[in-house]
Amino acid sequence: MSSSYGENLRLTIFGQSHSAAIGMTLEGLPAGFTYDPAALDQFLARRAPGKNAWSTPRKEADAPEFLSGLVDNTTCGAPLTAIIRNTNARSGDYSLLKTVPRPGHADYPAEVKYGGHQDVAGGGHFSARLTAPLCIAGGLCLQFLAREGIQVRAHIAAIGGIPDEGDPLLSVAEKEFPTLSDAQGEKMKALIAEKRAEGDSIGGLVECVATGLPVGLGDPIFRGMENRIAQIVFGIPAVKGVEFGDGFRVAEKSGSENNDAYGMQAGEVTALTNHAGGILGGITNGMPLVFRAAFKPTPSIARTQQSVNLATGEAAELNVPGRHDPCIVPRAVPVVEAAAAIAIMDAWLGRRKEIGG
Amino acid sequence: MSSSYGENLRLTIFGQSHSAAIGMTLEGLPAGFTYDPAALDQFLARRAPGKNAWSTPRKEADAPEFLSGLVDNTTCGAPLTAIIRNTNARSGDYSLLKTVPRPGHADYPAEVKYGGHQDVAGGGHFSARLTAPLCIAGGLCLQFLAREGIQVRAHIAAIGGIPDEGDPLLSVAEKEFPTLSDAQGEKMKALIAEKRAEGDSIGGLVECVATGLPVGLGDPIFRGMENRIAQIVFGIPAVKGVEFGDGFRVAEKSGSENNDAYGMQAGEVTALTNHAGGILGGITNGMPLVFRAAFKPTPSIARTQQSVNLATGEAAELNVPGRHDPCIVPRAVPVVEAAAAIAIMDAWLGRRKEIGG
Amino acid sequence: MSSSYGENLRLTIFGQSHSAAIGMTLEGLPAGFTYDPAALDQFLARRAPGKNAWSTPRKEADAPEFLSGLVDNTTCGAPLTAIIRNTNARSGDYSLLKTVPRPGHADYPAEVKYGGHQDVAGGGHFSARLTAPLCIAGGLCLQFLAREGIQVRAHIAAIGGIPDEGDPLLSVAEKEFPTLSDAQGEKMKALIAEKRAEGDSIGGLVECVATGLPVGLGDPIFRGMENRIAQIVFGIPAVKGVEFGDGFRVAEKSGSENNDAYGMQAGEVTALTNHAGGILGGITNGMPLVFRAAFKPTPSIARTQQSVNLATGEAAELNVPGRHDPCIVPRAVPVVEAAAAIAIMDAWLGRRKEIGG
Amino acid sequence: MSSSYGENLRLTIFGQSHSAAIGMTLEGLPAGFTYDPAALDQFLARRAPGKNAWSTPRKEADAPEFLSGLVDNTTCGAPLTAIIRNTNARSGDYSLLKTVPRPGHADYPAEVKYGGHQDVAGGGHFSARLTAPLCIAGGLCLQFLAREGIQVRAHIAAIGGIPDEGDPLLSVAEKEFPTLSDAQGEKMKALIAEKRAEGDSIGGLVECVATGLPVGLGDPIFRGMENRIAQIVFGIPAVKGVEFGDGFRVAEKSGSENNDAYGMQAGEVTALTNHAGGILGGITNGMPLVFRAAFKPTPSIARTQQSVNLATGEAAELNVPGRHDPCIVPRAVPVVEAAAAIAIMDAWLGRRKEIGG
Repeated sequence: MSSSYGENLRLTIFGQSHSAAIGMTLEGLPAGFTYDPAALDQFLARRAPGKNAWSTPRKEADAPEFLSGLVDNTTCGAPLTAIIRNTNARSGDYSLLKTVPRPGHADYPAEVKYGGHQDVAGGGHFSARLTAPLCIAGGLCLQFLAREGIQVRAHIAAIGGIPDEGDPLLSVAEKEFPTLSDAQGEKMKALIAEKRAEGDSIGGLVECVATGLPVGLGDPIFRGMENRIAQIVFGIPAVKGVEFGDGFRVAEKSGSENNDAYGMQAGEVTALTNHAGGILGGITNGMPLVFRAAFKPTPSIARTQQSVNLATGEAAELNVPGRHDPCIVPRAVPVVEAAAAIAIMDAWLGRRKEIGG
Repeated sequence: MSSSYGENLRLTIFGQSHSAAIGMTLEGLPAGFTYDPAALDQFLARRAPGKNAWSTPRKEADAPEFLSGLVDNTTCGAPLTAIIRNTNARSGDYSLLKTVPRPGHADYPAEVKYGGHQDVAGGGHFSARLTAPLCIAGGLCLQFLAREGIQVRAHIAAIGGIPDEGDPLLSVAEKEFPTLSDAQGEKMKALIAEKRAEGDSIGGLVECVATGLPVGLGDPIFRGMENRIAQIVFGIPAVKGVEFGDGFRVAEKSGSENNDAYGMQAGEVTALTNHAGGILGGITNGMPLVFRAAFKPTPSIARTQQSVNLATGEAAELNVPGRHDPCIVPRAVPVVEAAAAIAIMDAWLGRRKEIGG
Repeated sequence: MSSSYGENLRLTIFGQSHSAAIGMTLEGLPAGFTYDPAALDQFLARRAPGKNAWSTPRKEADAPEFLSGLVDNTTCGAPLTAIIRNTNARSGDYSLLKTVPRPGHADYPAEVKYGGHQDVAGGGHFSARLTAPLCIAGGLCLQFLAREGIQVRAHIAAIGGIPDEGDPLLSVAEKEFPTLSDAQGEKMKALIAEKRAEGDSIGGLVECVATGLPVGLGDPIFRGMENRIAQIVFGIPAVKGVEFGDGFRVAEKSGSENNDAYGMQAGEVTALTNHAGGILGGITNGMPLVFRAAFKPTPSIARTQQSVNLATGEAAELNVPGRHDPCIVPRAVPVVEAAAAIAIMDAWLGRRKEIGG
Repeated sequence: MSSSYGENLRLTIFGQSHSAAIGMTLEGLPAGFTYDPAALDQFLARRAPGKNAWSTPRKEADAPEFLSGLVDNTTCGAPLTAIIRNTNARSGDYSLLKTVPRPGHADYPAEVKYGGHQDVAGGGHFSARLTAPLCIAGGLCLQFLAREGIQVRAHIAAIGGIPDEGDPLLSVAEKEFPTLSDAQGEKMKALIAEKRAEGDSIGGLVECVATGLPVGLGDPIFRGMENRIAQIVFGIPAVKGVEFGDGFRVAEKSGSENNDAYGMQAGEVTALTNHAGGILGGITNGMPLVFRAAFKPTPSIARTQQSVNLATGEAAELNVPGRHDPCIVPRAVPVVEAAAAIAIMDAWLGRRKEIGG
């Protein structure tokens, strides 16, 4: 099913941008896990809009309400469902989009796919707002994994060609603008401000690193860590590319450059380099798992765009209403962490014990 | 399950490099589809090794034997299973790999994951040989889709930084070296020959384009066309990155550059550009679906590499035995077509009819 | 996942007896289906307790709140989620059950399974209250199927050995006590009253008949109509047996008695008898689909029962608190209809078109 | 998918009665399990036909060939595939069945479902011959479970109303006619002989008991042990009913009779009776898991039956060709054991560890 993910931990996301609520159900969370509500709220706040110059001024009340699956903040083994009420709906803004689809959005293919019955307001089920329930699920998984010694950390790797610099193992969770290098972050913010002033938007990259993973996570062929992570990360709106380790750069490399030789370190087998991004044959090798996701520039821009009127079949000019992020990348950082944590936890729960004969 | 893919069309791949046979089962293929055996053999021959200077001299008997699911070459509605016998097994070559894992291969993580019980010969279930049954499944889907007006075509997009040039809508299926530009292909072949002479290998890119897709294929969030294609394409050994449309380049673009405006063409709504690669919100928009996959250089190289002896915990030098492709990319072209065709057919079979009330 | 059902229509049920809410998500419902809220409320009222002498006097506010998936009561293609708030929670009643498990309930195995973390109040996720969201899902499916000419009707087939009598194709939806024969219903009510007076409870049978099904619904081996229906019907608490057509009676019959001969009726192939209950090889044959489910007597009885104190390992006497149905069967009738409708609709949505070659 | 079963252990069955081969793939079997080939052969022999007066004289070469998933009879973590060649195909026998469907078989609904493309020979994918690969899978699971202290044992519970008698915990695996009571078995054999002489067939019951199960196996709602076992057991051709514990008898009982009180036995919590058949709320309670399946009489009988000619729409008389079991029940006993073992192992592999917070 399209809005569900995972085998051992099953996430289902529901809701539309302007429906009564959005939310998610997680099945398969082990019983007896006590989550930290304050830490979850802090995590969700990293995604929430309306706080600064590079995000939409829309205020969204993203406080989750837990409906089931918990007894006193501890999982009880039953499916965990949490919802977020949609209080800031402004449906009037979107009334024209059913006839004149926005470039870069799902409006037109959704109109055809659902025979005109899709919920067009705010992008409906395709809205980036649906990453809020993804972050509830991912925030819980991040807490769970951290207690198992697994850390998942993302940062802005680049915006509009301006790269971040620094050690990706460091956390940027406390920063308002999540780059490793504050100096590079300033340049990025300046570029975003420039694009906003032009009524335009800008794309970027998010890099994510998971450490503390046991050797042997993931499964061959279609359920390797790359497949699992790619499947969920492409579920974040605006992602157009996913790469692991050296990623697309491997296409220009020779085997002698790209292979990670093995050595011993503190009595443990270790790869001496990490071009593979911690994954061989789909399976973790004990090195940091590294991947990057490319985010396209926000398609909603404050410029007149060319479209067609689906009712009349004539050309039409379109001004996208509403208030939008000139760059989605800063707010996407915790979303990527959330997605990675869900994928890792699904694999982690699926580990099999070797059985003697 | 790790070796299965798809919801409406379910592919299961089985076998190891040196097991009695490798094969696949396809469930959900509609009854009444008569496949063309000669065309399938031609398709499989494009993947088969041993034919030229840029692939391994190993000869593999890749003729499929169909065990079930057919009556007189026509699907009967029951699961279709086909196998390929492994006749060229040379298990002796691989006996040392259990103790000294090959860099760049799954040997070490698999040893840990399966508690030492994995089939190490030839890479076992992780071997690129498992792309042969993938091609049987994909070859059938390509035939099926072609009769529905859907064409899926891949070509070498680059090897070692040397790009292909030309119109990706053209077919390279008849070519021994599947590039659009023969001149660029010659340069690539020269680079491969050079790497082979150095006992090294080289990576590259495959680009794939699907045309004739109806508007509305794919599903939101986790089952969009990007998620589906990425999940299966990362199942091809050596793939480290997947991107759609402008892919990673979107990270440097502004919204006004990247949005595809709509216009009318011959009475049909059409996007005037195709930066999106034919996919918006996970759903096809009627434009060609375009993606690229990055292949790492073959990890098996004819050079001494540094590894460790897992039994003694000491450093060890390793010379990988066997005969290997200096560049996997030319043979990967039909494999990418096969993977894309399976993903597209799974989505195609899942289309829902709009129901009035 | 344990609380999800279906392939083409995916139902996920969440909530515990005393959690903030219970609810369900339906994925895969075709877009453009306008449901009838009044008819749904009427259907849900058939399951609701507190109305008469044979059900618990507990009042439950079972009005569903739809959170997503609809625009103006019409499905929009996104997952449909509905919840019911738990307003009548009386957690104090259940405090002792964690140490002294109730016979006939899941208390003890759940205590072991979830390491003491399960939600014991009111039976938690195992409560029969979870059939309310099942009925929301099923009520929608019943409306959908009815417009396709498919009717699903259940009735009490027996209580405590007193059989119903009459034509099972007739609807009992309007009746407070859903038997075909009111006379037999009176006898059953008298028996229930007798059991209630004794502080005891009584079991029974529900029979369900679906008509208007096309020939060819269902799939071979593990996804036949019998497998599908059994999987969901055993999801209703207290069901201990499911049988199709002549069911367990076939064990005493000969082939010449049990085979349904074919004939022509009004130009259509028809089975002249229906011992098979409309299913051959898992596939519908156009005859009414008939099945029965056996419900055990309510395990919560107003008598002192023998149990153990899990904390001390000593024998303990138990008086189950709360107010309970002396017979669950009358309220189970719409639940069985709901379950059957969901299973049938999942199969109906999965029909494949035959494709020529 | 219709021919697949299980979440943690995934079984896929392929083949038709007269296809080149039948077989199965098992994914998820833990690595390092060494199976006993002789014991498996003995198990498969219990299902094989042609040995005695109560089964068809057809000889079937049911020796499995393992294609993948094993190294030296030990699982390696890769999908395990085994096939059985169909050597005794007599397709000529079945040529008429496409136009004149056999009563009691899937011929007619399959003809409609697959648009005339189904494999009619020998029942195609609907043939009881497909229980042979089910028994390979189940035979492996039985061995695996036995080493974990779990025994799964079935016996003929009744044939044509003649009941078996004795202790169902005893094994009948060594007996040619698998009843607990040889005296009752003689009466059943006489009845079968009588039916065969009349050109008729007879139905019966199989009872299955699993012991040694840990408390807590299975999951709530749709993945309880009852749902799981029913889903797979209804996959055995001819099964028309499945019941657990006291089964359909619970419909006539009161709660005070049916509840299983708890007590302490050798320091362990135990149910003092086992009306529940070892399952409460879908979860095992540590008591023997008990279920029964009702098998209809073999529909292929040596009598002229009434059918219709689908081509002409006229009534037609039919004499079913081929040689058939006058009673399928004796050979079904190991099949039921196999099915139960697969369901139990799937649940066993899915157990979750309780996680502290």
